[in-house]
Amino acid sequence: MSAKPTEDPLVNKALPNGILPPNFELPYPDKPELITANLLKLFDLTPDPRIKFVMKNLTIQFLTTVGQTCTPIRQEFILLSDVLGVSALVDAINNPPVKGATESSVLGPFFTEDAPDIEQGGSIASEGKGQYMYVEGTVRSTDGTPIPDAVIETWEADESGSYDTQYKDRDHPDCRGRLRTDKDGRFGYRAVTPVAYPIPGDGPVGELLITIGRHNLRPNHLHFMVEKSGFRKLVTSLYPDGDPFLSTDAVFGVKKNLVVKLEEVNDDAEARKRGFPKGGSFKLLKYDVVLVPLDEAKAALEEFSKQRAKNAAA
Amino acid sequence: MSAKPTEDPLVNKALPNGILPPNFELPYPDKPELITANLLKLFDLTPDPRIKFVMKNLTIQFLTTVGQTCTPIRQEFILLSDVLGVSALVDAINNPPVKGATESSVLGPFFTEDAPDIEQGGSIASEGKGQYMYVEGTVRSTDGTPIPDAVIETWEADESGSYDTQYKDRDHPDCRGRLRTDKDGRFGYRAVTPVAYPIPGDGPVGELLITIGRHNLRPNHLHFMVEKSGFRKLVTSLYPDGDPFLSTDAVFGVKKNLVVKLEEVNDDAEARKRGFPKGGSFKLLKYDVVLVPLDEAKAALEEFSKQRAKNAAA
Repeated sequence: MSAKPTEDPLVNKALPNGILPPNFELPYPDKPELITANLLKLFDLTPDPRIKFVMKNLTIQFLTTVGQTCTPIRQEFILLSDVLGVSALVDAINNPPVKGATESSVLGPFFTEDAPDIEQGGSIASEGKGQYMYVEGTVRSTDGTPIPDAVIETWEADESGSYDTQYKDRDHPDCRGRLRTDKDGRFGYRAVTPVAYPIPGDGPVGELLITIGRHNLRPNHLHFMVEKSGFRKLVTSLYPDGDPFLSTDAVFGVKKNLVVKLEEVNDDAEARKRGFPKGGSFKLLKYDVVLVPLDEAKAALEEFSKQRAKNAAA
Repeated sequence: MSAKPTEDPLVNKALPNGILPPNFELPYPDKPELITANLLKLFDLTPDPRIKFVMKNLTIQFLTTVGQTCTPIRQEFILLSDVLGVSALVDAINNPPVKGATESSVLGPFFTEDAPDIEQGGSIASEGKGQYMYVEGTVRSTDGTPIPDAVIETWEADESGSYDTQYKDRDHPDCRGRLRTDKDGRFGYRAVTPVAYPIPGDGPVGELLITIGRHNLRPNHLHFMVEKSGFRKLVTSLYPDGDPFLSTDAVFGVKKNLVVKLEEVNDDAEARKRGFPKGGSFKLLKYDVVLVPLDEAKAALEEFSKQRAKNAAA
């Protein structure tokens, strides 16, 4: 763009596109309705009548419905971003994979700040919320060193595929908890075996999926967020194998190294030893979480950025 | 959906849409490219051939280009969300206005964590970064009570319309700072007079704006983030009046009560008293920031949610 690009101190320099403000007045978008109304009016500026028609009648009518479906507890726009893979793309761009490290996955809309602290071996789920599952492993650095005192936030849907926040009468958090790794980097806790569940289907995004022939299910998974100073914060999920929706997850969250095998343990004594009140059998999820030291994370981001810039130029 | 809806303990209950996984294999989306590739393949499931054509050739080709333009330091998807008003909508939905309180505005992509702490009367900008402006006011609660020790983060573009992060050789933060209100809730600091600037125009979103006849400018503004425990966190901007792009802000950020008048002070002694090294004239921005106590914020969110649910049902 510039005559002497090597001397320009700015990166991704932005230039005005030369289009003047419209010659009609718009109200300030003080209400959500006005934002969409203004957007629609601005489409009248489209010079090509065919593009204007398509824009106003297809894209925008749809986006308007999406906007109207949003409430403070229902983010239909985020859902649209999810099913178009945008949320997964943003995650992939911000967290390029590092060899040997646990990869990231989409955060999703069900994380809350109010998860209770639980002890090692404690339970994140109240009794009867699903089939017993025990989760255990070590949090390590990429060089294999165990990481003590890392904070693990973990949450999941219950046996019916619903998060606690989806219940009208939620008076306390359930199927979520926060714990710290011990001096050897280990963690272990009781949870419930995850199940596949549908994302909301009664809004415009649900209708879009039907129109384009796509199912609206997320495969079974358990969410994790792992933090320790000096390491890249990890937001991810583990996906037990055998689920028919793994490779077509409605929100593109599954990565190969996040698919795990659950062991079936049919040993009443073992179940009771792990603290499951009713004993019987349980599933065992063994997984070592590998965090990326900040300097490696920075290097990966720079390398990834360079590669993408090269690909974009090619 | 349910036969006895009043007995269902779930809100916004999600149901499977009945569509099965496709009968072809998809790779796990381990790389950003695969996310978009999988999305494209999934569009083959669209039963209506006309919709399939439009989806694949218009919407998706565009979204693919948007995805390819993203790098760790360039979020073209966020930009798309911004120019379609989605970011503003999400902000509006999460922060419904409260009578008398300062309204929120979009955060934008230029906030950083590394702003330096400045003293009362200190400067957020290094000398020569633009025309002198002094910002002063009081942070209050909705009942008028001044709020001491509130943390104010504030940032802006320089005279050329560029943020410090847009310079290749950024070795320290500039045009950004963090300060605390004094015991009477007051704050005052030196800054530079904001100017209008373009959002990136050399990618697919920039091309979209040209195609639909929209300028790509944001009107002049100064960013604020104000935090104090017990109050709703405020993310906003103030927009000096007289800017031709105010009501057509490319990202729908301007609200009426965020438009302010700058006073012109032509008084060398006054300028030196405020600490401007070169004296001369300066602009004065006087503004009292009004924060919303958490209980009022919660009530506003509930009322807003109820209203939107009512409108959606009507």
